Amino acid sequence: MSAFVVTGRALASRTPQETVLENVALLVADDGIIQRRAICGTQAYQDLQSSETLVHLPDDTLLVPGLTDLHIHAPQWPQAGTALDRPLEEWLGTYTFPLETRYSDAAFAATVYEDLVQTLLRNGTTTALYFATIHEEASLVLARTCIKYGQRGFVGLVAMDHPDLCPPNYRQASAQDALDATRRFIHAVRALPGNEAGLVQPVITPRFIPACSDALLNGLGALAAEMNVKVQTHASESDWEHHHVLERTGQTDTSALDAFGLLRDHTILAHAGFLNQNDRTLVKERNAGLAHCPISNAFFAGAALPVRDVLDEHVHCGLGTDISGGYSPSIFENARQAVLASRMLESGTNPEIPPAKRGLPNHRIDFQEAFWLATRGGAEALGVPSGQLLPGQAFDALELRCTSGSLRLSSQGSAASCAQKIVCHASPETIDRVWINGRLVKE
Amino acid sequence: MSAFVVTGRALASRTPQETVLENVALLVADDGIIQRRAICGTQAYQDLQSSETLVHLPDDTLLVPGLTDLHIHAPQWPQAGTALDRPLEEWLGTYTFPLETRYSDAAFAATVYEDLVQTLLRNGTTTALYFATIHEEASLVLARTCIKYGQRGFVGLVAMDHPDLCPPNYRQASAQDALDATRRFIHAVRALPGNEAGLVQPVITPRFIPACSDALLNGLGALAAEMNVKVQTHASESDWEHHHVLERTGQTDTSALDAFGLLRDHTILAHAGFLNQNDRTLVKERNAGLAHCPISNAFFAGAALPVRDVLDEHVHCGLGTDISGGYSPSIFENARQAVLASRMLESGTNPEIPPAKRGLPNHRIDFQEAFWLATRGGAEALGVPSGQLLPGQAFDALELRCTSGSLRLSSQGSAASCAQKIVCHASPETIDRVWINGRLVKE
Ligand SMILES: [Zn+2]
Ligand SMILES: [Zn+2]
Repeated sequence: MSAFVVTGRALASRTPQETVLENVALLVADDGIIQRRAICGTQAYQDLQSSETLVHLPDDTLLVPGLTDLHIHAPQWPQAGTALDRPLEEWLGTYTFPLETRYSDAAFAATVYEDLVQTLLRNGTTTALYFATIHEEASLVLARTCIKYGQRGFVGLVAMDHPDLCPPNYRQASAQDALDATRRFIHAVRALPGNEAGLVQPVITPRFIPACSDALLNGLGALAAEMNVKVQTHASESDWEHHHVLERTGQTDTSALDAFGLLRDHTILAHAGFLNQNDRTLVKERNAGLAHCPISNAFFAGAALPVRDVLDEHVHCGLGTDISGGYSPSIFENARQAVLASRMLESGTNPEIPPAKRGLPNHRIDFQEAFWLATRGGAEALGVPSGQLLPGQAFDALELRCTSGSLRLSSQGSAASCAQKIVCHASPETIDRVWINGRLVKE
Repeated sequence: MSAFVVTGRALASRTPQETVLENVALLVADDGIIQRRAICGTQAYQDLQSSETLVHLPDDTLLVPGLTDLHIHAPQWPQAGTALDRPLEEWLGTYTFPLETRYSDAAFAATVYEDLVQTLLRNGTTTALYFATIHEEASLVLARTCIKYGQRGFVGLVAMDHPDLCPPNYRQASAQDALDATRRFIHAVRALPGNEAGLVQPVITPRFIPACSDALLNGLGALAAEMNVKVQTHASESDWEHHHVLERTGQTDTSALDAFGLLRDHTILAHAGFLNQNDRTLVKERNAGLAHCPISNAFFAGAALPVRDVLDEHVHCGLGTDISGGYSPSIFENARQAVLASRMLESGTNPEIPPAKRGLPNHRIDFQEAFWLATRGGAEALGVPSGQLLPGQAFDALELRCTSGSLRLSSQGSAASCAQKIVCHASPETIDRVWINGRLVKE
């Protein structure tokens, strides 16, 4: 890729509460990093505009940062929008585990992952943190698919060995087997052809504490430190899971993960609805972060994550689709749901309860905050230098058509009102072009 | 239009809990009504298939009934996805009423309504029950736009005269003025060129009790009976509104509307979250119905409509986008939210409350029920013979492409699983063709 300059209107978050809308020129260097940024009307802008390789965005478009999906089960894509009416045990046992088992077939994996990665790109997801399966070959297929289409992918070979909570035909045979497989997978992803710049990275991925033995969890913690690999897992998703871990370990998920050495720099905890304030403080101290999955939570969490508290306490947080606990591959649709869920937490839902006792006052988030979660929040939590279209960050960006689909953006709107309109109305129809690390991946 | 036969796979609700997926042939008569229906493999099917004007749907598509939007404020379309973070009074006073005032300009109305009606058709809304504004000319523009694009429109000139709760520059000057305007509007819509078959109908539309004097409400009730016109209004939307009406009339909205003669055959009450069981029984006795607006409710209702009770009590109910209290013009997106909101009512939302006390058990609805609400539920509530693709019903239908957007429908899925996938993933991208009353309105 050679360097180029992009000019146009750009919308991005400075902070969760501050969105900026400016006419800018961005110089994207040949390594995909934004090297310079200049505002229209300045000499620096004029200098950049005279570049030979200029991409000028039309007036009826808007440049926004790419989206980060902090929690998605790639193998579950075929059943997105299936069996969500079933209880969790049945959803797992009858649908999810049998489906994941099929990824022993790498050809099946290829078909699904080709479709999924392209679908995510059409939805504007420039970075995805994936759970794959326990199958090394199929999980490498996912990594290769990300490389093929240019998506920034963090791919986890799932580790799960607990005989009581994993199906006999879908688990690693022992802690050591799971550790060996994880180590091999880390090396294999790092060695993939085309991955020299590290666009795709391996992630240590214990499914969740209940599915893993102590030996496995301890081993994975040590492996993360030894090989300097990021970690993802589920934490305190539901009442059942939360109490199961309390009973087994005498600690909350967060404390237990920390004791296993798994709560590290940019570890991502999915769901996290039942974290208490001490847990959140610990997440913050470790520079870890949360993946908020508001659609999935309505089906399987039994409560809403208090995102207001998470933001106010400056705990890293982004959004996850949680395919297929959530049905939608769209981070924009999850951003909308994050706002709606926070309103239903704030107001409460039961009309028979008097309003003063119905909800949890002052717990809403607004659309600017949802826009931040979808863009910078997720990138920051995962430690990806991206999400704000600023110098030093990778050029991960979407060109939105402001008059397509249901999106109608006037040129007079404030940055905050643009962010709201975009969160409410953006869809694949409104996403014209997508760049990841400076490379045009969707046209 | 001349008669034709459609053949293909069709999915439709028999009841809220029973969805049917069959290979069918439908004979659509020249008046747009389905005259015959035959199942593949029968002689009747073979007879129909030899028709000269045959529309054969490709194998990777599915025919579903058109969608009904039971509550939408057409003039608010320009601000869909705007100011939803503001309190209701500010949302109304600073944004909504000033915007509605602009429809004194019929040219402005034409621009907005052209865009809105086409957007709704792209989203699969074949029938819409509209609030317009107090402006007769602009409201006729909306009716004409429905006729132009072939949408089944129920259009209400808004009646609002209460000096305490309406802005001085946006209300009718007196009850008599509002009644006269409503009467003129009814005649005008019925007399519109191209409306001989009554595709577009006028609706008596008191904004809500607080905005109307007793004289106006009584007068509108009498007018509805005299001219045999349907009625729509808001009822028991929020704590404030519910208690305001209790205080003013000594009755609930529902009882008060009944006393004013406004709770009639196919009257549609928007929101209705704070109706008690007696209210719902009265709605049922009058053969009226509810417009459930789950996206809007998260912002302005302060609680969730217990749709489970509504369905179990066999009260007529459909879905409304409530543009722009809700941001989305899509009934499919509202159907998804109806499921999510019911789950958050059932589970409750506050993680600090023990699970047994957090929610309202057994209050979920499932995706089949949401599909029914979006299709037959709304049509039935409004008294439109449509929504199930059955003989005697109008041919209002959508052709869904089963492998576009995020929709991936296998040909082996059960009817229930198809309904779930469709509710979860249908979007304008997946809607190929739209017919209303037998006329192809989107291709
Ligand atoms: Zn998950
Ligand atoms: Zn309304």
